[in-house]
Amino acid sequence: MLRSCAIRLRALGSPPARPPEAARRLFSSEKAIHKDYALPNPSWSKDLRLLFDQFMRKCEDGSWKRLPSYKQNPSQVFREFQTRFVDPSLKKEEQMSKAQQFTRSFEEGLGFEYVMFYSNAEKRIVCFFQGGLHLQGVPGFLHGGAIATIIDVTAGMCAIAEGIVMTANLNINYKKPIPLCSVVVLNSQLDKVEGRKVFISCTVQSIDEKTVHTEATALFIKLDPDKRLT
Amino acid sequence: MLRSCAIRLRALGSPPARPPEAARRLFSSEKAIHKDYALPNPSWSKDLRLLFDQFMRKCEDGSWKRLPSYKQNPSQVFREFQTRFVDPSLKKEEQMSKAQQFTRSFEEGLGFEYVMFYSNAEKRIVCFFQGGLHLQGVPGFLHGGAIATIIDVTAGMCAIAEGIVMTANLNINYKKPIPLCSVVVLNSQLDKVEGRKVFISCTVQSIDEKTVHTEATALFIKLDPDKRLT
Repeated sequence: MLRSCAIRLRALGSPPARPPEAARRLFSSEKAIHKDYALPNPSWSKDLRLLFDQFMRKCEDGSWKRLPSYKQNPSQVFREFQTRFVDPSLKKEEQMSKAQQFTRSFEEGLGFEYVMFYSNAEKRIVCFFQGGLHLQGVPGFLHGGAIATIIDVTAGMCAIAEGIVMTANLNINYKKPIPLCSVVVLNSQLDKVEGRKVFISCTVQSIDEKTVHTEATALFIKLDPDKRLT
Repeated sequence: MLRSCAIRLRALGSPPARPPEAARRLFSSEKAIHKDYALPNPSWSKDLRLLFDQFMRKCEDGSWKRLPSYKQNPSQVFREFQTRFVDPSLKKEEQMSKAQQFTRSFEEGLGFEYVMFYSNAEKRIVCFFQGGLHLQGVPGFLHGGAIATIIDVTAGMCAIAEGIVMTANLNINYKKPIPLCSVVVLNSQLDKVEGRKVFISCTVQSIDEKTVHTEATALFIKLDPDKRLT
């Protein structure tokens, strides 16, 4: 689906917009909203922590960049997106302020635990992902929809380097099921750009790279700023 | 991903296996586990209730069947699946007893609210789906991964009439974004069966059928009972 300015801001590493002090006091949940979830927490396994540390070292020379991740879009970004792309009749700001990013709407450790790193030179995203107990499909394994979700997120992050984009196609081959609570590595690569079309490929592998769990291609379309979505 | 015996039991409409009275008293969460979530609750919109009522009337002559839906697999089904398909080294029964079905792991109204109906004569599933505020992608719209998830669930339910199956491919075309908290209709159809391959198509439309939001095809593979998954 859509990759918004919010995500682009995140990709660029900008801190979320903050309201002035008085407004901040009015919204007690503001701090929680702006918490960066792409950082270690007690639910992270040893494997996930080791991979995180390894890539944080790669970030030191600037060749890789860790991408922060939030539960909600900063209100400034929300308004910008609504103004540019959404029909005014659909603006339900009060209700939407309660909405949460799908992948960050779980309790710590029970859903999507992940961190993404971006290499601008390679046009590549690496995502380390640990899928928790509330992402179950059949007993003991991740749901196919949860795998599709983390692929959409990772491929989408790779595509937004090209502009504000929308997922047009996801084609996913499931090769080997992923055990719940294990850590896998997603590799997402920009293949080509043709006009407004952005082509991305993505694989999901075991940490030792011996098992390919899933392979996918994705097509994203750059949004036309003069056209509304609905 | 995989569609287990649990889902097959559900499709057949069997009530979940219940432990004897003494054991039931030991597990206070048992009642919650066996709650059927494919029934109206206060978060359901008027649209969703109307569609539910309309199809419940179609069930009266037996041509359609409502499919119940649970948060966890009954322990008997869990053990049967583990015994038949999972390597013994992966059996972590204590941990797995805390796992929850991905689409049923949200608080009422915030995640996936849906009910499916099955027509055996037409080999077709109709799913009415209301995606809540915690399934957000860009501001105001459902996440592409959430849409992939409900497609996987609906197409999978259509496929399991043919046996215990596993998703091998999902190919999804996103045509028009779905506003958060709206109700859409999924239609999933068995296209053909070739040996162990089960081909399904699925569309996501607005209630008035004027807007096609998403179109997908899915390939499922019937599991070989003599072969383990991992």
